[in-house]
Amino acid sequence: MELLTINNVWMMICTALVFFMHLGFSLLEIGLTRQKNTINILFKNIFIITIGLLLYCLVGFNLMYPGEFNGFLGFAGFGLDSPLTAEGTLDLAYNEGYTYWTDFLFQGMFAATAATIVSGAVAERVKILPFMIFTVIYVGLVYPIAGSWKWGGGFLDQMGFYDFAGSTLVHSVGGWAAVVAVCLLGPRIGKFKDGKAQAIPGHNIPLATAGVLILWLGWFGFNGGSVLSADPELTSVTLVTTCLAAAAGGVVAMLVSTAMYKNLDLTMFLNGILGGLVGITAGADVVSPTSAVIIGAVAGALIVLAVSFIDNKLKLDDPVGAIAVHLVCGIWGTLAVGIFSTNPDHSFLTQLIGVACYAAFCLATAFIIIFTLKKTMGIRVSEKEELEGLDGYEHGMDAYPDFRLNEH
Amino acid sequence: MELLTINNVWMMICTALVFFMHLGFSLLEIGLTRQKNTINILFKNIFIITIGLLLYCLVGFNLMYPGEFNGFLGFAGFGLDSPLTAEGTLDLAYNEGYTYWTDFLFQGMFAATAATIVSGAVAERVKILPFMIFTVIYVGLVYPIAGSWKWGGGFLDQMGFYDFAGSTLVHSVGGWAAVVAVCLLGPRIGKFKDGKAQAIPGHNIPLATAGVLILWLGWFGFNGGSVLSADPELTSVTLVTTCLAAAAGGVVAMLVSTAMYKNLDLTMFLNGILGGLVGITAGADVVSPTSAVIIGAVAGALIVLAVSFIDNKLKLDDPVGAIAVHLVCGIWGTLAVGIFSTNPDHSFLTQLIGVACYAAFCLATAFIIIFTLKKTMGIRVSEKEELEGLDGYEHGMDAYPDFRLNEH
Amino acid sequence: MELLTINNVWMMICTALVFFMHLGFSLLEIGLTRQKNTINILFKNIFIITIGLLLYCLVGFNLMYPGEFNGFLGFAGFGLDSPLTAEGTLDLAYNEGYTYWTDFLFQGMFAATAATIVSGAVAERVKILPFMIFTVIYVGLVYPIAGSWKWGGGFLDQMGFYDFAGSTLVHSVGGWAAVVAVCLLGPRIGKFKDGKAQAIPGHNIPLATAGVLILWLGWFGFNGGSVLSADPELTSVTLVTTCLAAAAGGVVAMLVSTAMYKNLDLTMFLNGILGGLVGITAGADVVSPTSAVIIGAVAGALIVLAVSFIDNKLKLDDPVGAIAVHLVCGIWGTLAVGIFSTNPDHSFLTQLIGVACYAAFCLATAFIIIFTLKKTMGIRVSEKEELEGLDGYEHGMDAYPDFRLNEH
Repeated sequence: MELLTINNVWMMICTALVFFMHLGFSLLEIGLTRQKNTINILFKNIFIITIGLLLYCLVGFNLMYPGEFNGFLGFAGFGLDSPLTAEGTLDLAYNEGYTYWTDFLFQGMFAATAATIVSGAVAERVKILPFMIFTVIYVGLVYPIAGSWKWGGGFLDQMGFYDFAGSTLVHSVGGWAAVVAVCLLGPRIGKFKDGKAQAIPGHNIPLATAGVLILWLGWFGFNGGSVLSADPELTSVTLVTTCLAAAAGGVVAMLVSTAMYKNLDLTMFLNGILGGLVGITAGADVVSPTSAVIIGAVAGALIVLAVSFIDNKLKLDDPVGAIAVHLVCGIWGTLAVGIFSTNPDHSFLTQLIGVACYAAFCLATAFIIIFTLKKTMGIRVSEKEELEGLDGYEHGMDAYPDFRLNEH
Repeated sequence: MELLTINNVWMMICTALVFFMHLGFSLLEIGLTRQKNTINILFKNIFIITIGLLLYCLVGFNLMYPGEFNGFLGFAGFGLDSPLTAEGTLDLAYNEGYTYWTDFLFQGMFAATAATIVSGAVAERVKILPFMIFTVIYVGLVYPIAGSWKWGGGFLDQMGFYDFAGSTLVHSVGGWAAVVAVCLLGPRIGKFKDGKAQAIPGHNIPLATAGVLILWLGWFGFNGGSVLSADPELTSVTLVTTCLAAAAGGVVAMLVSTAMYKNLDLTMFLNGILGGLVGITAGADVVSPTSAVIIGAVAGALIVLAVSFIDNKLKLDDPVGAIAVHLVCGIWGTLAVGIFSTNPDHSFLTQLIGVACYAAFCLATAFIIIFTLKKTMGIRVSEKEELEGLDGYEHGMDAYPDFRLNEH
Repeated sequence: MELLTINNVWMMICTALVFFMHLGFSLLEIGLTRQKNTINILFKNIFIITIGLLLYCLVGFNLMYPGEFNGFLGFAGFGLDSPLTAEGTLDLAYNEGYTYWTDFLFQGMFAATAATIVSGAVAERVKILPFMIFTVIYVGLVYPIAGSWKWGGGFLDQMGFYDFAGSTLVHSVGGWAAVVAVCLLGPRIGKFKDGKAQAIPGHNIPLATAGVLILWLGWFGFNGGSVLSADPELTSVTLVTTCLAAAAGGVVAMLVSTAMYKNLDLTMFLNGILGGLVGITAGADVVSPTSAVIIGAVAGALIVLAVSFIDNKLKLDDPVGAIAVHLVCGIWGTLAVGIFSTNPDHSFLTQLIGVACYAAFCLATAFIIIFTLKKTMGIRVSEKEELEGLDGYEHGMDAYPDFRLNEH
């Protein structure tokens, strides 16, 4: 009973920290975009966390953890239903790490994250109603089904695929959808001029910085809670690898971007930290601190190269760098388990198969959803609305009415 | 000993989270008002949390928890005095949930909240010195006396009244005083034109949004800590009902306001979340998740209707919607215990009596304090000061001196 | 095992809270300075926390806790190496309070703080590259060597010097270096006119306020975690003394500054809170709540007097008041242990000796580092860069590109 209580306290705290990441994402996304779309982005983020929790309660939790199932798709029924013993008391055998309720809430906080990643990538030009529909389907169905393959005990779990806290299950699942959405939406007006990518500066870098530090704090819960107990050795090693990878990712991204652009670029520094965090997420509990530094450092370098590649070669417009951070580093982190894991059962090939399965499923489902929305109701706001800002059109309000603003 | 240690850790964390709510309130209040009064609002909030703690240490704690008393008013003496055993060691019998010190600090963080609620309602026109005097009396005397009736084991507790974490004891206690203050203060200049309410937009919606997410985070401690132990089942159920009610409140407020105004109003969405949180606070530990969704949803609808009613029918000027959020949803949440509680001892009638007792006491005491202040020193700033902003007059500084601002 | 798990959970949470203080420092520093140097300050802060963790992992931890050593300087080798039993399992005998990994991470979060204190004092005119070099040496070598004298079991520890959570070991260590840096750098252009100090208003007071409340929250972990276990009595007493000192510091600073300047100065209120927190840090676990209020109150008064003295008499330009907060109150708090401690072994004289040792060592090392940097590469930006702002020159970006700004 004492052990259950301790474990449960730790898991509840981690749940609160993962919840708090939604503030981090919100601040990061508005900070890196223009003021005229701020209300719109905040509205989307608030929608994601609220509807996400309700959907996870209604269907998601039981899709993701269906109990015994065929390994591809299972459903344990609608709503929540705490397992009790025959005497009607709490079934301690359910899980010695935490209660059924903590389990639901911790996982529910994760569910909303995948859609948030997409939110950043489509910012400043997506129509809000189709985005809301996409969110409902992606958070309510796609994320939990994909999650069941590994965390629900499905076929990838049985194959030996490893993803500790979701480099693939959370970050890539969001990242693949971001790729599809960005391709189908097209770039913001003015992003590419004569075929060259133009910088569109974010309007509030202090809030973006606060967002990154809040996300780092949230990762204490994201990775620390993924131990699923308060095991002292595992939780504390996990926090150490997580923080070292974040630090290494930031420092290396800063060095590489300074070398490439002769400029101390704060945004790259911040995205390097996030890249390090996403990269360590798949193996935070199975790699040494030294490996964590290497994983983070590679992620930091990847961020700088990927942002440039996506901008200049692929000519995709991802306003906040979500694809570089969540998809590229998500894939890297998942494969890194196959290289650095101290567990000999983890293999690079299995990790690669896992990555490929999620790529196929997420690209396909995201394409079906977003393409259908594009052909039926349209997914992009009018040129006039985009130029004047989404806040006035869709929300009838300004983010900063007392301040004098520049037009662009 | 282990159990005491675990419980105490949980309670200390919850204390920290409730403390953090003061940042949430601060950001919400400044975000929803004009930039020219920002310093003033922040000053009031910082005053409330600092003086609130000192007063709760000096008198509040021992007024609220007087031990054996007549059920209406008791006082256990000034200052703090930890109970020790005859051997001079920590008296574990004091409370198996946490130490005396944690008890004081957790309750002290609650005490300041009631005055903070009033702070938002009177913003942009109240004179600061009388507000500070009001705060001292309300936090130092009124709140703890009212609290003793239920949480101190007073007459309402003996009658079977139930208020888990303070829909009434905290939120309505603040809300009733807000009503009195708003009536005695009158509306801001320009709020009503030809008898019609005018929108006065808040100046920093990103900070208001951050405030709401910080408040939601804080509610993990506000409700989770009100279990007064780390009991795994009760704490985790409480967090689930709390989060589901918040989510339902937000989504329903968003839907209702969109239906009424054809506008995706972020402020209503945010206030709906707060309404759901206030609503679930009275019964978070005694209702099912499904009931929590219903309680939150009703609160969300109430918010939209109440804001409109207070603005357009009552013609009261409550800049941040504090009355709708804290009073209306506080009453609803308290009554909802009588409808949805799984404990058959809870009755709608007793809940109604409790609400009425607090209404009478808080309206009377708030009126006496604020009316006296109005007749002696005045409670409202001059017209010139209100138009030019309180920051320059009372504080000699601007919130944003480097930014060019619009006059209004 | 249960006790280790609980203690470790508490220490991990405190670690997260101390990490979060870096957001608090960042927001405070940018809020109290001008918008044109915002990116630069954020960049420095992000650099400090990332490089700080990596350096503490590489050398700092083993310099600060060298095990058996001569009491002045020891080094246990590079990198991290968890102590295991002969069977290869976690060595519980290492420390019953937490694991080796938690120990490293908690201490690592402290290490970066010292440099952050300097960052505020040198803001708006320091060249970034020499500041980064200073940070590497000060965080990597000076801080851990100084720390080893007390917390590593060195000569001051053996002499009976007491510094619970670092009024001296963290805050004064940063504060002394701030004095040196400010002297060698000189004041910002425009700070002194005809020998009189001019106010240079901070550009974003809401963010500065948020920073202070985040720092206060972080202090729950800074002091609470310094118990090094979850001992219910000690941790909860510590949180009570910490919060009471913060409250008293704020209220007294507000009263004194209002008496002196006839102005309700929010910045003084905020710095008073920080002064109270720094002041209680040396003895939070060995003083009574009443003593904590006195210590905080004295710190609050000291802040107001020290800020005025540093500005008007010493004519030093410390943009955020770092010297008054961290050095003056750090010294006061350390000496206060000699006055108010309930432990008769603590003596005022020993405390004074400790303060003097740190003064000598930090002034000397900081002078050597910064003077060398000044003579070789220069430590101050050009006049043109200072006037136009560091953000455009060193970072090629603006903090708020969508807002119209005032020049000054």
